[in-house]
Amino acid sequence: MSAHPTFAGVELGGTKCVAILARGPQDIVASETVPTTGPEKTLGAIGGLLEQWKSEHRYSALGIASFGPVEIDASSPAYGSITTTPKLGWRDTNVLRKLQRIANVPAAFDTDVNGAALAEMRWGSGQGFDDFAYITVGTGVGVGLIVNGRATRGFAHCELGHIRVARLPGDAFAGSCPYHGDCVEGLAAGPSLRARIGEGVADLRPDDPVWDSVSWAIAQLCHAIVCAAAPRAIAIGGGVIENQPHLLERVERMLVESLNGYMQLPSDGPYIRSPALGANAGPLGSIALAMSALQ
Amino acid sequence: MSAHPTFAGVELGGTKCVAILARGPQDIVASETVPTTGPEKTLGAIGGLLEQWKSEHRYSALGIASFGPVEIDASSPAYGSITTTPKLGWRDTNVLRKLQRIANVPAAFDTDVNGAALAEMRWGSGQGFDDFAYITVGTGVGVGLIVNGRATRGFAHCELGHIRVARLPGDAFAGSCPYHGDCVEGLAAGPSLRARIGEGVADLRPDDPVWDSVSWAIAQLCHAIVCAAAPRAIAIGGGVIENQPHLLERVERMLVESLNGYMQLPSDGPYIRSPALGANAGPLGSIALAMSALQ
Repeated sequence: MSAHPTFAGVELGGTKCVAILARGPQDIVASETVPTTGPEKTLGAIGGLLEQWKSEHRYSALGIASFGPVEIDASSPAYGSITTTPKLGWRDTNVLRKLQRIANVPAAFDTDVNGAALAEMRWGSGQGFDDFAYITVGTGVGVGLIVNGRATRGFAHCELGHIRVARLPGDAFAGSCPYHGDCVEGLAAGPSLRARIGEGVADLRPDDPVWDSVSWAIAQLCHAIVCAAAPRAIAIGGGVIENQPHLLERVERMLVESLNGYMQLPSDGPYIRSPALGANAGPLGSIALAMSALQ
Repeated sequence: MSAHPTFAGVELGGTKCVAILARGPQDIVASETVPTTGPEKTLGAIGGLLEQWKSEHRYSALGIASFGPVEIDASSPAYGSITTTPKLGWRDTNVLRKLQRIANVPAAFDTDVNGAALAEMRWGSGQGFDDFAYITVGTGVGVGLIVNGRATRGFAHCELGHIRVARLPGDAFAGSCPYHGDCVEGLAAGPSLRARIGEGVADLRPDDPVWDSVSWAIAQLCHAIVCAAAPRAIAIGGGVIENQPHLLERVERMLVESLNGYMQLPSDGPYIRSPALGANAGPLGSIALAMSALQ
């Protein structure tokens, strides 16, 4: 038996969930994938794994990293719930309560991006930092903003993907966010690309002018993040970036132009960087959350 | 002699500095104003007061709340300095080092707005909150963003007044910020009003259309603050707001419209509110910083 404590984690995603038992990225004891269907069935299967692992291995804490929006206000009776999701049956499902009842250990509950941000800080591109941000640009734009070692969470979790930023001059696309039109998510996430381009998104070349608009919106988001909390670095992942990795450098260049010398970015390596944990950032995020539950 | 410890504070302002000795807002032992001229003379006078108070009263810690930009990165050799100010002679002046050498007690150094935010949380409009924001709209737009009880400070302090936000449709004013043109400060601070209106700023009526543009820019700033850290409330002060107090309600209304139901503001009282400490927020900010130096 290892001298290090073991943690259980659950990453709830829109199409699949991962239940994981681990002591860190190099020491994953078990990992199981469960399709995201209805909450009874999906959480039932995850609960079964947590039950089984409890008797076989013991674990010290549970972390749950969920798609959102979620209620993270511990003073709310809905704390631990997925709230206004359009996903069938999941609205107002209290995930934390259901799973903690089974696990019966200290538990932490947060967004998937906050979990991924904490995992990147512990084992990946944000190691050694107390202030860090993780952005994912995929079907949406999610941001985990870590200040003094903890994710921001006042009356709600970070939603910086939904700020309204200055537009790239000449870009008049109305944006695709159903709430805000041309917020960052409405200008840079996958659905905005399909709204701009139609079917050809997968074939877009790196020099297509649409990437100017996408880089600009993400750079403006980074400008706001720098002005809000001056993280030591910002990691950006997600499907849109993974398919067009040249965007990272363009975002950093536009960010520097936008700040225009008013603030100087740290000079140790690229400020805008790739996440280091890749596809493992999500499940490891739940393990990082579990670890935080004991702190 | 009081059972409560006494703290020394220094608020460095652009035209005057205040040195204060206090146990809280109801228990101010001494307060002296020193004009801001050159750093030798001004800091010399403040140092003399700190020296005198040390022998007469003793104090447990020192807080310095300064106009910016300042170096707040404790790992930097310039920690405690005013950095790139155009103010004659003050550039690269290490205020913290000079004054702590005299006070010889634990000291905290931060921006004036971060100090005011902490003071409002301790004694004013943000009491009972761990997450709070304080905005001042005057000759500039300053923001103190408090997350988990502490001001954000990664590689730099909060500069949210300099984010670039979506423009009010139809408002084509280029903005007056020398760095960013139409950032929030460039759209809403005093100099932007003079650039838009000329000499008649003091005579502007509450229904002048310029207030739509100003409220909009501040509401977009609040939208970004809510998305970044969801503070429990936002207090807004400063000369522009004090002269046009109707702006607070307009900003809240525009903020709610801008969030468009995606996030629900807390419903306990106005979310956008007046600071409670008035002209005392600055000096009391330095006392709140001094208290934080012992935590």
